[in-house]
Amino acid sequence: MTDTIISSANKEVVIGFDRPFVVIGERINPTGRKLLAEEMKAGDYARVQSDALAQVEAGAGILDVNAGIPLADEPAILAECIRLIQSITDVPLCIDSSIVAALEAGLEAYQGKALLNSVTGEDERLEAVLPLVRKYGCAVVAISNDDSGISEDVNVRFEVARKIVERAMDHGIPASDVIVDPLVMPIGAINSAGQQVMHLVRRLRDELKVNTTCGASNLSFGLPNRDGLNAAFISMAIGSGMTSAITNPLHGNLMQAVRGANVVMGHDAECAAWIHSYRDPDSGEAPRRGRRGGRRRRVEKH
Amino acid sequence: MTDTIISSANKEVVIGFDRPFVVIGERINPTGRKLLAEEMKAGDYARVQSDALAQVEAGAGILDVNAGIPLADEPAILAECIRLIQSITDVPLCIDSSIVAALEAGLEAYQGKALLNSVTGEDERLEAVLPLVRKYGCAVVAISNDDSGISEDVNVRFEVARKIVERAMDHGIPASDVIVDPLVMPIGAINSAGQQVMHLVRRLRDELKVNTTCGASNLSFGLPNRDGLNAAFISMAIGSGMTSAITNPLHGNLMQAVRGANVVMGHDAECAAWIHSYRDPDSGEAPRRGRRGGRRRRVEKH
Repeated sequence: MTDTIISSANKEVVIGFDRPFVVIGERINPTGRKLLAEEMKAGDYARVQSDALAQVEAGAGILDVNAGIPLADEPAILAECIRLIQSITDVPLCIDSSIVAALEAGLEAYQGKALLNSVTGEDERLEAVLPLVRKYGCAVVAISNDDSGISEDVNVRFEVARKIVERAMDHGIPASDVIVDPLVMPIGAINSAGQQVMHLVRRLRDELKVNTTCGASNLSFGLPNRDGLNAAFISMAIGSGMTSAITNPLHGNLMQAVRGANVVMGHDAECAAWIHSYRDPDSGEAPRRGRRGGRRRRVEKH
Repeated sequence: MTDTIISSANKEVVIGFDRPFVVIGERINPTGRKLLAEEMKAGDYARVQSDALAQVEAGAGILDVNAGIPLADEPAILAECIRLIQSITDVPLCIDSSIVAALEAGLEAYQGKALLNSVTGEDERLEAVLPLVRKYGCAVVAISNDDSGISEDVNVRFEVARKIVERAMDHGIPASDVIVDPLVMPIGAINSAGQQVMHLVRRLRDELKVNTTCGASNLSFGLPNRDGLNAAFISMAIGSGMTSAITNPLHGNLMQAVRGANVVMGHDAECAAWIHSYRDPDSGEAPRRGRRGGRRRRVEKH
């Protein structure tokens, strides 16, 4: 029964074994978004703001913020984005960078207990990031690769996760503030990728007692109808015990799969969130088919 | 590693632990379909035929056939439907009746190894149905209620299943020819209904080594957007080891969830079935959102 508390100045979000699944909105990230990158570099944050609000509206519990733009002052831009987003929403943030100086600038700017994205099992990264986690009292995403890269062997990935959790504890950071990403491989290349994740999530939960997260859309890389496959995968990951994911809440099929999984897990008391989301018959995520099916059935009954 | 073979005269379908999930199409059932009931009673089977073909086209691996019409000659109608359906499709059938004489008439008419639906843990039903299963060499759906009704206690439901499997073995029927339905309760009434099913499916698989099935849509009874909730549930049930379900293959959201779960389980070699179903970009089950998302992303990259 592990709870990880992430907060803004006014709001707490709890990622936990017996809690509704937390979607960490991934949209505020210039990687692969050329227009957003240019705007952010030029100090134009209108799209950052609208993306933040749209993701919160769609159901994100936390927003990931990344400012990784080549040849830009990433620490300054990340800090500025964080201040700006915290001025328009009270949803807690996940501070995301590969550059340690940017992580620290983000933590300096942040109000509350952030989620830091990320530390890996690489020794240099561990010794650079964990002191920041300790100093700022935040939580951290731990990605299960190390100096030898990403192993295809799930047991190696599990041992990397264990090493990070133990090293965090050496730094005075509780295991409950480490959220492990077991790494999701493209299933088009590795047929066992889905089974790997479900197996690792169970072990991480049962043996290390940690919360988990993942980049949910990696699984469907290279395949058609990615939204549909991601939806099935995220329901199954939740069923195996995954407690959060960094993904796109604007994909309605995916959010429906998350809300449905919360109901099936018994984490949506009296199905209140489900009923709130879908009580309008036009609100379903596949309305054409849903309505057609409904009409057909009614006709046949009379 | 349990395989249950169901066949028609020319075609085998295998329900098994390491196989793609088998959808048993539920549509040929006059319960709650007044028009269909009237037509069947009058000897008009045009809708039975079109429902059979539509379900096969949509991906059903087996078709359930039920002729439970009040004040009609159910054994004769069921046998006639079975002969007719077997003349137009080679998909194996599931012979479904609460009346033992109808089950036997269906078995007499059937070409191949049928699935019989169903036996329960009630002593009278066990002793009426199991001799038929033995005589005709078919497989049987075992529903985990008994003379005391349906228990809300999963341990009681598990023990009823164990009793049916043991009684079947006493009759010379192998456990691999018993497919247990652990009974899915409405989650709007029983918050733990989803967890119950996932827990029972794992135990039935690990301890009794049997295949499983369920009426997948029971879970969502009384809730809005049932198709969406059923989709999340069926993915999660497959993730916990369920190997078949009696459900409606005409619901595209549900079939997408089944196909996606097959991929995630590693039961769709090289994702071939997924790619075949969705390689046309317009074939996704949530096309409006899927296409809109695609356009938005492309615009932002340039």
